[in-house]
Amino acid sequence: MLPFRVVDQEHVEQLLDMKHVIQLVERSYTLKEQNEAALFPLVFHEFSPGVADMDIKSGHLTGADIFGLKLVSWFGGNPAKGLPPLVGFVLVLDSRTGVPVGMMGGEAVTLMRTGAAGGIGAKYLARRDSENLLLVGSGHLAPFLIMSTLMVMEHIKKVTVYNARSHEKAVSFCSSLKDKLKEKFLAPYEADAELYRTLLRRIDIIEVAAADDIQRATEEADIILTATPSRQPLIKKEWVKPGTHLSCVGADMEGKQEIDENLFPAARVFVDDITQAVHVGETEVPIKKGTFAKEDIVAEIGSVILGKTPGRLSDDDITIYDSTGIALQDLITADYILKQAEARGIGVVARL
Amino acid sequence: MLPFRVVDQEHVEQLLDMKHVIQLVERSYTLKEQNEAALFPLVFHEFSPGVADMDIKSGHLTGADIFGLKLVSWFGGNPAKGLPPLVGFVLVLDSRTGVPVGMMGGEAVTLMRTGAAGGIGAKYLARRDSENLLLVGSGHLAPFLIMSTLMVMEHIKKVTVYNARSHEKAVSFCSSLKDKLKEKFLAPYEADAELYRTLLRRIDIIEVAAADDIQRATEEADIILTATPSRQPLIKKEWVKPGTHLSCVGADMEGKQEIDENLFPAARVFVDDITQAVHVGETEVPIKKGTFAKEDIVAEIGSVILGKTPGRLSDDDITIYDSTGIALQDLITADYILKQAEARGIGVVARL
Repeated sequence: MLPFRVVDQEHVEQLLDMKHVIQLVERSYTLKEQNEAALFPLVFHEFSPGVADMDIKSGHLTGADIFGLKLVSWFGGNPAKGLPPLVGFVLVLDSRTGVPVGMMGGEAVTLMRTGAAGGIGAKYLARRDSENLLLVGSGHLAPFLIMSTLMVMEHIKKVTVYNARSHEKAVSFCSSLKDKLKEKFLAPYEADAELYRTLLRRIDIIEVAAADDIQRATEEADIILTATPSRQPLIKKEWVKPGTHLSCVGADMEGKQEIDENLFPAARVFVDDITQAVHVGETEVPIKKGTFAKEDIVAEIGSVILGKTPGRLSDDDITIYDSTGIALQDLITADYILKQAEARGIGVVARL
Repeated sequence: MLPFRVVDQEHVEQLLDMKHVIQLVERSYTLKEQNEAALFPLVFHEFSPGVADMDIKSGHLTGADIFGLKLVSWFGGNPAKGLPPLVGFVLVLDSRTGVPVGMMGGEAVTLMRTGAAGGIGAKYLARRDSENLLLVGSGHLAPFLIMSTLMVMEHIKKVTVYNARSHEKAVSFCSSLKDKLKEKFLAPYEADAELYRTLLRRIDIIEVAAADDIQRATEEADIILTATPSRQPLIKKEWVKPGTHLSCVGADMEGKQEIDENLFPAARVFVDDITQAVHVGETEVPIKKGTFAKEDIVAEIGSVILGKTPGRLSDDDITIYDSTGIALQDLITADYILKQAEARGIGVVARL
């Protein structure tokens, strides 16, 4: 009988730190670019439209000797039952033998790898001297996106947060942001005094403000991260100044849209996976509306990380990173968790 | 954190008995027919053609409040590493909340549900007075198919086993068959004296013989079950007498074929799932060769079980059941195991 490790959410959170997750997600992108990783077709099912659905994202990273899947259920009625609306898991198998290795709940992995993806967009596509970060959305993902960006960008001075539905929520989010960032993300670096001090300084130095005027906030921004379930563009083309970078992580199904489709024609557009981006990503609507074509996508982000394709060509370029979220990010992160858990004897070892 | 149960293979074997599995598989078929269950698209990936592949079969049985998936890896090089070539798992979630419930290795579930499917084909499509059972293939599945057929057919007097590659293997299989059936399948019925005696008698009464002449064996057979990885028809049309039933469980991917495509035009053909049958089942090759059409399939088996479509119309009909193997069989069986395991405190309860 084959051993199979199950790691609970609390331990997943303890085992992950943003610096490692950024490295892991970059590796999943570069392995994909080097044809040592690929996505399998997405399975999506609506039990009841707008009420309950699930998807299965799977793929392999033979370059990391793993394959596997992430299943995410969204059940809108769950909170009334005392359950989270999003539940699911990531399950990893060995691509040399097909043997299941282990699994864990999907929530912490998803938050960390999605946060990392937004930061990676900024790292490779924003101007190095970017100072003003605008976050559109103040939900669960927001602290993860802010932390990953602070980690990879040295000069951030201001973080502006906008919530299209509730300014109050943005204000409340901002009031506790710095404490939250320190509590949630810094503990893993206590043993590395220099890194710890650097990150602490980056958090302490930023000015945090809730925006009620999205036009003005956009006009000031060097980097815009969007993480909402919006189906209407929140950012208008006219507001975006030359040189801005936008990382969009919210769109993950047909019809979702966070930024103006008219931003696409003049921008340098990068994606995590071309197929997924044109079907369910931020890139989908511009293509459907005819302002953009699949062929206009400059490259997948892995190509930029590897230095095969230049990111921005000038300080005036508007760059867009459409991060749809791919199974490879989850799998490589889950594999790291399982290896760490094995080394430290964490989790439950069952037998199949 | 959500509890999640993992049941090991030994306990899965203890918790399953063929009578229940036949009932469960019939229920998965009838729920599908009643639109209370459906398959999601199949994901298939070849890591290396002919050497290593994997598939993910998923679906939901809202009628049983579950959904989930089975992942099966086939790695031809595993035996040299001391591992089984086929490994995988079945994982069940609650379709009212999306919450993962539990999982187990896939091997025992697959053998039982596939064995049950062959018997169900005979139960609904063979002549009630069938006496001669021919099994083509003497691999892992053979005892499961024979037991399920003995369970549902009262008059079996002879079981003939044919192995196209090795007559010796068929002879060896036959020499231990009766003991194997008793050991493997009867223990669960010790508490039910009447059923136990009935099944014991059915096993004791049969004459078991290895065939070296497949033409003669076919000519004698009332029921033919095929369970091989063949890509060439092993059963010729001319040999099959009127009134014969054939259940084919071997074909599960493109190009596999066990029986003559010319048997199809004059036969009443039933399948477990039309989409899967025409793409990867025994029905695929006849359609590709033009001797049969998708529209010629009489019905899915669930319709026969529900009495909506008649099985055979006369004692002279040749009936075919193309059992491709669907995720619903695995899911309903796995759900039963998890409920039994919970009731008896079996397996490891981890937390996600």
